[in-house]
Amino acid sequence: MTVTYSNEVANATFFSFHRLLLRWRGSIYKLLYREFAVFALLYTVLSLVYRLALSESQRRLFEKIAMYCDKYAEQIPVTFVLGFYVTLVVNRWWNQFVNLPWPDRLMFLISSCVQGNDEHGRLLRRTLVRYVNLTSLLILRSVSTAVCKRFPTIDHVVEAGFMTPEERKVFESIRSPHLKYWIPFVWFSNLATQARQDGRIQDSIDLQNILNEMNMFRTWCATLFGYDWVGIPLVYTQVVTLAVYTFFFACLIGRQFLDPAQRYQGHDLDLYVPVFTLLQFLFFSGWLKVAEQLINPFGEDDEDFEANWIIDRNLQVSLLAVDEMHMDLPHLTKDIYWN
Amino acid sequence: MTVTYSNEVANATFFSFHRLLLRWRGSIYKLLYREFAVFALLYTVLSLVYRLALSESQRRLFEKIAMYCDKYAEQIPVTFVLGFYVTLVVNRWWNQFVNLPWPDRLMFLISSCVQGNDEHGRLLRRTLVRYVNLTSLLILRSVSTAVCKRFPTIDHVVEAGFMTPEERKVFESIRSPHLKYWIPFVWFSNLATQARQDGRIQDSIDLQNILNEMNMFRTWCATLFGYDWVGIPLVYTQVVTLAVYTFFFACLIGRQFLDPAQRYQGHDLDLYVPVFTLLQFLFFSGWLKVAEQLINPFGEDDEDFEANWIIDRNLQVSLLAVDEMHMDLPHLTKDIYWN
Amino acid sequence: MTVTYSNEVANATFFSFHRLLLRWRGSIYKLLYREFAVFALLYTVLSLVYRLALSESQRRLFEKIAMYCDKYAEQIPVTFVLGFYVTLVVNRWWNQFVNLPWPDRLMFLISSCVQGNDEHGRLLRRTLVRYVNLTSLLILRSVSTAVCKRFPTIDHVVEAGFMTPEERKVFESIRSPHLKYWIPFVWFSNLATQARQDGRIQDSIDLQNILNEMNMFRTWCATLFGYDWVGIPLVYTQVVTLAVYTFFFACLIGRQFLDPAQRYQGHDLDLYVPVFTLLQFLFFSGWLKVAEQLINPFGEDDEDFEANWIIDRNLQVSLLAVDEMHMDLPHLTKDIYWN
Amino acid sequence: MTVTYSNEVANATFFSFHRLLLRWRGSIYKLLYREFAVFALLYTVLSLVYRLALSESQRRLFEKIAMYCDKYAEQIPVTFVLGFYVTLVVNRWWNQFVNLPWPDRLMFLISSCVQGNDEHGRLLRRTLVRYVNLTSLLILRSVSTAVCKRFPTIDHVVEAGFMTPEERKVFESIRSPHLKYWIPFVWFSNLATQARQDGRIQDSIDLQNILNEMNMFRTWCATLFGYDWVGIPLVYTQVVTLAVYTFFFACLIGRQFLDPAQRYQGHDLDLYVPVFTLLQFLFFSGWLKVAEQLINPFGEDDEDFEANWIIDRNLQVSLLAVDEMHMDLPHLTKDIYWN
Amino acid sequence: MTVTYSNEVANATFFSFHRLLLRWRGSIYKLLYREFAVFALLYTVLSLVYRLALSESQRRLFEKIAMYCDKYAEQIPVTFVLGFYVTLVVNRWWNQFVNLPWPDRLMFLISSCVQGNDEHGRLLRRTLVRYVNLTSLLILRSVSTAVCKRFPTIDHVVEAGFMTPEERKVFESIRSPHLKYWIPFVWFSNLATQARQDGRIQDSIDLQNILNEMNMFRTWCATLFGYDWVGIPLVYTQVVTLAVYTFFFACLIGRQFLDPAQRYQGHDLDLYVPVFTLLQFLFFSGWLKVAEQLINPFGEDDEDFEANWIIDRNLQVSLLAVDEMHMDLPHLTKDIYWN
Repeated sequence: MTVTYSNEVANATFFSFHRLLLRWRGSIYKLLYREFAVFALLYTVLSLVYRLALSESQRRLFEKIAMYCDKYAEQIPVTFVLGFYVTLVVNRWWNQFVNLPWPDRLMFLISSCVQGNDEHGRLLRRTLVRYVNLTSLLILRSVSTAVCKRFPTIDHVVEAGFMTPEERKVFESIRSPHLKYWIPFVWFSNLATQARQDGRIQDSIDLQNILNEMNMFRTWCATLFGYDWVGIPLVYTQVVTLAVYTFFFACLIGRQFLDPAQRYQGHDLDLYVPVFTLLQFLFFSGWLKVAEQLINPFGEDDEDFEANWIIDRNLQVSLLAVDEMHMDLPHLTKDIYWN
Repeated sequence: MTVTYSNEVANATFFSFHRLLLRWRGSIYKLLYREFAVFALLYTVLSLVYRLALSESQRRLFEKIAMYCDKYAEQIPVTFVLGFYVTLVVNRWWNQFVNLPWPDRLMFLISSCVQGNDEHGRLLRRTLVRYVNLTSLLILRSVSTAVCKRFPTIDHVVEAGFMTPEERKVFESIRSPHLKYWIPFVWFSNLATQARQDGRIQDSIDLQNILNEMNMFRTWCATLFGYDWVGIPLVYTQVVTLAVYTFFFACLIGRQFLDPAQRYQGHDLDLYVPVFTLLQFLFFSGWLKVAEQLINPFGEDDEDFEANWIIDRNLQVSLLAVDEMHMDLPHLTKDIYWN
Repeated sequence: MTVTYSNEVANATFFSFHRLLLRWRGSIYKLLYREFAVFALLYTVLSLVYRLALSESQRRLFEKIAMYCDKYAEQIPVTFVLGFYVTLVVNRWWNQFVNLPWPDRLMFLISSCVQGNDEHGRLLRRTLVRYVNLTSLLILRSVSTAVCKRFPTIDHVVEAGFMTPEERKVFESIRSPHLKYWIPFVWFSNLATQARQDGRIQDSIDLQNILNEMNMFRTWCATLFGYDWVGIPLVYTQVVTLAVYTFFFACLIGRQFLDPAQRYQGHDLDLYVPVFTLLQFLFFSGWLKVAEQLINPFGEDDEDFEANWIIDRNLQVSLLAVDEMHMDLPHLTKDIYWN
Repeated sequence: MTVTYSNEVANATFFSFHRLLLRWRGSIYKLLYREFAVFALLYTVLSLVYRLALSESQRRLFEKIAMYCDKYAEQIPVTFVLGFYVTLVVNRWWNQFVNLPWPDRLMFLISSCVQGNDEHGRLLRRTLVRYVNLTSLLILRSVSTAVCKRFPTIDHVVEAGFMTPEERKVFESIRSPHLKYWIPFVWFSNLATQARQDGRIQDSIDLQNILNEMNMFRTWCATLFGYDWVGIPLVYTQVVTLAVYTFFFACLIGRQFLDPAQRYQGHDLDLYVPVFTLLQFLFFSGWLKVAEQLINPFGEDDEDFEANWIIDRNLQVSLLAVDEMHMDLPHLTKDIYWN
Repeated sequence: MTVTYSNEVANATFFSFHRLLLRWRGSIYKLLYREFAVFALLYTVLSLVYRLALSESQRRLFEKIAMYCDKYAEQIPVTFVLGFYVTLVVNRWWNQFVNLPWPDRLMFLISSCVQGNDEHGRLLRRTLVRYVNLTSLLILRSVSTAVCKRFPTIDHVVEAGFMTPEERKVFESIRSPHLKYWIPFVWFSNLATQARQDGRIQDSIDLQNILNEMNMFRTWCATLFGYDWVGIPLVYTQVVTLAVYTFFFACLIGRQFLDPAQRYQGHDLDLYVPVFTLLQFLFFSGWLKVAEQLINPFGEDDEDFEANWIIDRNLQVSLLAVDEMHMDLPHLTKDIYWN
């Protein structure tokens, strides 16, 4: 599930964000310690080679290369590219969150407008919300790797109770080379129409309102699917990755401490540990990690949306709302401000 | 509550923003004086150590380190990172403000479309708006620390009159491992449907309009909840904090006034007080404070939304509108432009 | 009223924007001439002191301070901070314009769907639109300083014909510690419902459409109110102002022409008038003025929205549309393309 | 009309954008050749004066001034200011395009829901769409210079068949100091209501849907009007223009090739033609031209919207759709996939 | 079709984006290898000329020119211009994706609300969805080069079964100088109205909901058309292209390795292969390629939308939904959570 830290930053107190620096789960350290180790190792190896293995003239050459790399490292516009790219990724990520399909709006309508406490009434309401949950399951299966692992085949969908065996037969008998997640909604709309004709839904206004909500739900599903299907163009991601990796490659060589005795400008100090370069590494690859985490929010990262939990919650809550709670109202009593 | 200063800047006059610099409440000074003091203190300590405690050769080393730090301080892209990050935070903050749940739209409809001045009619209207207020209370309890302090348990909700004891029993008898803030809306929609069947709501159009408004209200609540639940990814916040803190750390050393006698470039002046570095500190940590204040607008900062006030206002106003003011119209008289 | 210049830039001609540089009303010159004079004066005083009043050694010190200031002036990221901040202010300003409450949509519906040319019908329609205008007046009074000056008390509202004396009594008899601008809309919705029950509004569809439009109008009002109530956080504005003022302060000293005889780098020319610094002043404080003008668009700046004119226009037009023009149709005749 | 080049860039091929560099219509060359010529001329004159007319000491002074200008030219943040400003202008321009009033949605409804093939039915439908077209014409007259030239007075509107002479009398008899473009919509809504009462529109649902579409159309018109009325604040445009012009002024002097014999840094080469400065001129004033073209998209630039064409198209198409095509359906036949 | 890689980046793992660097389809390498080869070739030729063909004094001149070019190459703000421009292009591209016309919402309504399993009912439903598909085909023909190749004339549209020969006659008999893609929607709305009068559509609510969905579909189509018709102003694209090309031109000369023996600053190393310049080339032209690919997403690039596939899918699915599946519901059975 996503890493929630809003409580810790409710108030802006003395250096209030510093506490966030000490967390592990979902943190920059957890995400980056391996990359950081590799970078530090490579830097150390290069440093040792320069200091111990090279001959005098090789060291002079290395120093020239280092200064050449350093000069170009500064010219790579990592900051801007990351700024524009991460903004794009964050917007897409949030839009996906906003379009997660919740059946609540529909279940209120079904619970109140599809009438009858008898068995047929219950069956009707339960089937309608089941179709809604089935649709979101079918979409989430193709969007989320976690859901796909849990429901690898239609068999699993049937077993989990989202589809009856008979529905499955009908579902599979429909010949279409295309994705079939729209089928339960044809059933939904047809079933709702039948319910109106049987008088279970009182009139067309109620029916149309339910159908409109259904279409809104479908649009959420289709939007999620669209975000998965059409990602940020590969070239853009490659360009950004290339820029960041090139920068780090240039830093590996260019940020070596050169022999102060050579009196190169800006190289009159040998600290052994390149503090600021390591911080820059953390900083820039942390920024890139933001993009890596959010570019597909349906994976299994710490920050990803827990699609399986959503599926379970929706089924449980929506069946409860349309069946047990149908017309089961608390007795009306006067509130304490009555007069 | 938020700090309102729009009246003071209604007109763009001579240096009109300078007046804002002299305020205390919600100001950069109130928010930053502690951090500023710590920064100034550390700077002074370092300065004294350099000037008084170090040996001649240690001072030479310190000077090299200082120039090294200064060089890298300039390379840290604090401005851009803060620019992109604060823009993101400000957008989220404003969207949360826009999605605060106000019952006004619903209460107009309930007041006009749920009929009957008898006790049952009053009970019906009051109960409907109470459910609406209850829902927003349940959401705000999980979103806002201030509301959570005031209503730590369901007992407090019942005592405050948002829920009757009987409703509470029903509420708690519903078994669900998930959050239950949707329950009052099932009651709402069922109660409204019953009211139509009893003829209290005249026809389906009225009912569906009320249910649509209810769903809009639910969406506001869900959006608020979503913003609290899924924050800006922790890594992003850490990256920004890290960048700013690294910058200040580099400044502490790198912006020391070095011995002019050494004739280092740009160090031919010893002012003792680093005016511009202190202003930069105010400036950049002020910008970060904007983010700290707004990242969770339901805390108890000067700028935060006063959720408790909203809850009280909504209950008072909505009960007034649907009960006392129901069909209580001023006598129609001709206006002064009649002919 | 706002300064309209779109006609002058309809076509992109030879240096077409240069004409805009020669305007006075709403221009950068009108807004900035005082600040500009102060800045130029201070610069001149400093310059004279340096050239005439200081001793030789004081001049050397001043020169060092000047170069120190100049170095830091360049490091202040005024451009970016202004860029991000002004973008935010401009977006908010435009959203406020978009949410100005116009009664046109409502008045079309009221004129066509509330029937009866007799006195009661006229009274009904006039009262309904009057409530609409009253609501927007109540909101604009708390938002706009200009409107507040014109209608300082409820007395003025009654006198101007937006409220009848009797309505005022009812309005004031409603006890609520909160703002009461929602009251006319409770009256509106109740009155419209009564009109349906009397058969003046034909059926529920018509009624609900009118109520939906009313709610849309209310949302505009509430949005305007929200923008006034919750401004850009004070800290943000302070940070920006601080950055700009610090920059100008640093420029005052750092951009002095130093004695060319001292051969400081970049100081081999003494022009007396710092052309580019003055242009930079115009430029950056002009940009900040954009923010100062737009941060509260309901003041009395040249660019501000003329709320009083809006109030008058709305009342006049909406009464005309629902009363005199009700069902007063031109005779249907064939148009010139008939066959 | 706008310059369409999307076909030429349908596929991303080898240097695919280079083809765009060779177009004339709507191109940077067509828009800028005059400014470019002026700039080049001034540069040449200055260059000749420096090389031929000045005395030795004057040349030394000129060289100092040139280097002074060059230093400050680099400090002017033209890129950012243009970036933020052009983004704002482009967004406004696109929003105006999106809000161009097309009657298609309304004409489908009128064609299908206003019944009767007799003369009165035809008259009704034609008059309704004529009112719609009349409204958009009245708005476009005040927004677009091109439309204003074509319809300078109401006489021209009547002659073009958008208004009958009798309607004109009624229109002018309505006394209001304010713009009157809302009048045809009062007629529209009243006429539609009458049609429902006469049974031409079957029931209220149909009527309200038509009125809602009418209100949507009105909102488009009002939005267009708003964009024309309230432009980007003059100060912003002036600030940007000032920045760009200052930059070019500084370049004129600062980018002169100085005598290599003087061995000024970066001035060891005399190319006579300042290739990169000329390209920078093209580049920055091209960017500014984007803003100049789009700031008022209703002029007569190559890229502007052809409002007169829109008016003609809308009238022709909408009369066709509601009259000749009313209920004129092709015979229903089985499609080729029937079984 | 678009290049989907979201599965590969579902989790943020060790250097997770590096895998993306190794793909070919849709990659930066596939898109840029030709440009890259040309650039490398030109660089090599220039390098050889400098090293082998020039005389001593020509080499000195070349070196000066190279340093001149290098200095200006750094001043060209490629990063920002590309950042702002690509952001604009990406937004437009995504909006086009969002507005692709899918008939699903309409087909659910038609399938459930247009009644009758007899031949006339089937004919009615099939014809209605066929009109919807026909409209989107007519739009996509003028928007997409791929669709235009497949359906170059109306004949092909008739052959493919989107239009019957009789409809074609009516279509062509309607005289209008303007595009005619709105005609099938007049038929649609008229046919739907007739169906209501025949009792096939039960009441006005159903009809109006269908017409509203139809209007929404039309808006998608019109939006797509608008994006194709009114592109990003040519000048903007030219400005960006010019900036990038100028930059590369300056790099070709300015980034040559100059003779280290001349001891020019920053030229004490001769690497023969300009690694960082080549990476910069990849990087900046990759970024420009993002724009080239997305500026018209209806071409035949790897990333473009496959409009032909969309047309086929929509026809097949929508006919299936409204005909075979009409009221063909799976038997209602109790789900596994029944009690």
